[in-house]
Amino acid sequence: MKPDAATVVSAPAAGPAGLGDEILAKARRTMAESGLDVLVAMSPENLAYISGAAPPSQRTVRSRHAAAVVPQDGATEVITVALEAPLVQSQSRLDSVTAYEEFVEDPIEVIASSLNERGLADARVGIETTYLSVADHETLTRALPRARLRPIDELLSTMRMVKTRSEIEAIRAIGAAADRIATECVAQVHAGDTERDLANLITERYLEAGGDQFTMLVVGSGPRSAHPNAPATSRTMEPGDVVRLDLIGTSRHYYSDVARTAIVGEPAGEPARIYDLLMSVHERLLAALRPGASSSAVFAIYADAMTEAGLPAYHFVGHGLGVTLHEEPFISAATAVELQEDMVLCIEPLTMLADRFGVQIEDEILITADGCEPFTRAGGLLTIPA
Amino acid sequence: MKPDAATVVSAPAAGPAGLGDEILAKARRTMAESGLDVLVAMSPENLAYISGAAPPSQRTVRSRHAAAVVPQDGATEVITVALEAPLVQSQSRLDSVTAYEEFVEDPIEVIASSLNERGLADARVGIETTYLSVADHETLTRALPRARLRPIDELLSTMRMVKTRSEIEAIRAIGAAADRIATECVAQVHAGDTERDLANLITERYLEAGGDQFTMLVVGSGPRSAHPNAPATSRTMEPGDVVRLDLIGTSRHYYSDVARTAIVGEPAGEPARIYDLLMSVHERLLAALRPGASSSAVFAIYADAMTEAGLPAYHFVGHGLGVTLHEEPFISAATAVELQEDMVLCIEPLTMLADRFGVQIEDEILITADGCEPFTRAGGLLTIPA
Repeated sequence: MKPDAATVVSAPAAGPAGLGDEILAKARRTMAESGLDVLVAMSPENLAYISGAAPPSQRTVRSRHAAAVVPQDGATEVITVALEAPLVQSQSRLDSVTAYEEFVEDPIEVIASSLNERGLADARVGIETTYLSVADHETLTRALPRARLRPIDELLSTMRMVKTRSEIEAIRAIGAAADRIATECVAQVHAGDTERDLANLITERYLEAGGDQFTMLVVGSGPRSAHPNAPATSRTMEPGDVVRLDLIGTSRHYYSDVARTAIVGEPAGEPARIYDLLMSVHERLLAALRPGASSSAVFAIYADAMTEAGLPAYHFVGHGLGVTLHEEPFISAATAVELQEDMVLCIEPLTMLADRFGVQIEDEILITADGCEPFTRAGGLLTIPA
Repeated sequence: MKPDAATVVSAPAAGPAGLGDEILAKARRTMAESGLDVLVAMSPENLAYISGAAPPSQRTVRSRHAAAVVPQDGATEVITVALEAPLVQSQSRLDSVTAYEEFVEDPIEVIASSLNERGLADARVGIETTYLSVADHETLTRALPRARLRPIDELLSTMRMVKTRSEIEAIRAIGAAADRIATECVAQVHAGDTERDLANLITERYLEAGGDQFTMLVVGSGPRSAHPNAPATSRTMEPGDVVRLDLIGTSRHYYSDVARTAIVGEPAGEPARIYDLLMSVHERLLAALRPGASSSAVFAIYADAMTEAGLPAYHFVGHGLGVTLHEEPFISAATAVELQEDMVLCIEPLTMLADRFGVQIEDEILITADGCEPFTRAGGLLTIPA
């Protein structure tokens, strides 16, 4: 745990074909097309995407930088803080793990040394300019004065937009589990139970199903169902309450994002009418999904239906899903992306009536050669026994 | 939820004296000393510190930037994404909340517009260069070509190192709760229960006690007690196992960080001997804490004791605690900070015997005028009934 200097912890056995190989091959094709000699991925999402590693305290202690280094030719490497190197070693699909000592070594200088030692001091180096801070960029420029630093943010975003086979299976597995868990747990609580009772039940099942953790678990009842991103509280669920759930978490770094709406007691009145309306919009949205469809045209189906019904619309109705919760393509008025085969999208028609209730349906969908295939599938309004 | 342009949502009533007033007054004194006209805080920790607001998806969806704008003269403002503006409004202590529309407006340009409208286009603007990305820095520079952008990272870090009265009470309250919860929950599980059973119990109590959530809850039993930052798994706790707990979470943005070690069955053998040794080191560490003490001299007490005992030492034995988990001052060999009154520190002697077990004691301590005052206090090795 206290190496005197950056240390190669060990080299793993060559991994089996699968997720890692698919992504590395794709990364190197993309690098070749873009004229990059080496790629340095430092954001938690791109580190996980490229290497399979997620040092647990990277997000909490921001100075504990980590990086995946992928040269066009030669061995790949993860650089991480020494205290988490054994865990990163067990997660990483890359050739080696290099550990640096916190407080003693600057991780940016350790990255620069790695490139220098590889003979890449004057190389074309891809960096994430929407993640790397100004201060770290200065350190890197000072340590590699001849390197040609180039932004790779869009390149990585575009690469990640279309999923590989193994990614599709990873997202499908945890998404389908989230769908099943939401339905089952709603049937196991009753009027008088709290939002937190329901959240605890869902959390337990999600971990049992292979979830790493919830990034954001929404359980909002009554007027709180109209709050975006509302965590569970001690509020008790009462007859007539709308309860909105959104299961946002990860399994092996891939996100689930499935939202369901329930009512306490028998479905009736305005919430039931709005739910049925959203469900019919949802069906029309799914019917429009296919390669070549434009994201803004899909959004218009939702926006127009909400305008016609006199209900408030959200500013998007879908988004890509992968190692981040929200990624390209966004299904919004402001974006016009052509859908492609093997994109994985969340489609989520919703309406929030402030101080009253919110209704949301969110399913995960794979774009196929001639249409789409849902990983999850909302049915009618769920009910919690009164 | 769909403003056509950046919109002032509303201005809150003037807040009562307390946390917000203390911090704003301190920020403006610091700005005056440093010759800054306006401060723009964008990292989640400094946004929360300055404004009291924490937009829930800021960490998950990185492009949803938020900022606290504090001019030396004039009204203060939080800028946040429209969909979370109502929540931010309910949290913020600043004068107004400005919402921007995702996909349509660039939050960096909204910040620049705010400064322009305030007549601060050529001002000395404090920014966080260890947080602001290269790409966003370019946007800001383009939008405010005459502004003099200056790094305020160290200035904010130094400001936050010494806590105000209200901060001390906030940290004390959730820290004391974490201490009590760890002790009580350990007494309620038994051999044969899983790490996750214990974690679920702790999580429930932590939320009841006013915790927002756990950022990282460590429950590692047997050999897993030696893994740093190990989340709970389905491993059952067996007689003789060491179980290491670390309760890392927040309440109203302030962290708790309390670690305890338990054994399943009667304390005996090497774990008990090592625990007693660490406890005696812990007492000597606490006795050394006072204004003027050097952090590296305090670290030497721990490092020397571990060397003498032939046990592996960690690379630090303490750190500041506040709106981040790890902040200045660090108690390590590599740092030499003089302790000051009203710093809040975690002191955490630990030793990790890889593949065998790990033992850790971590308490939260306030530096007082003539020594220190523990917020939490470890006793003997905790026991889980066999």
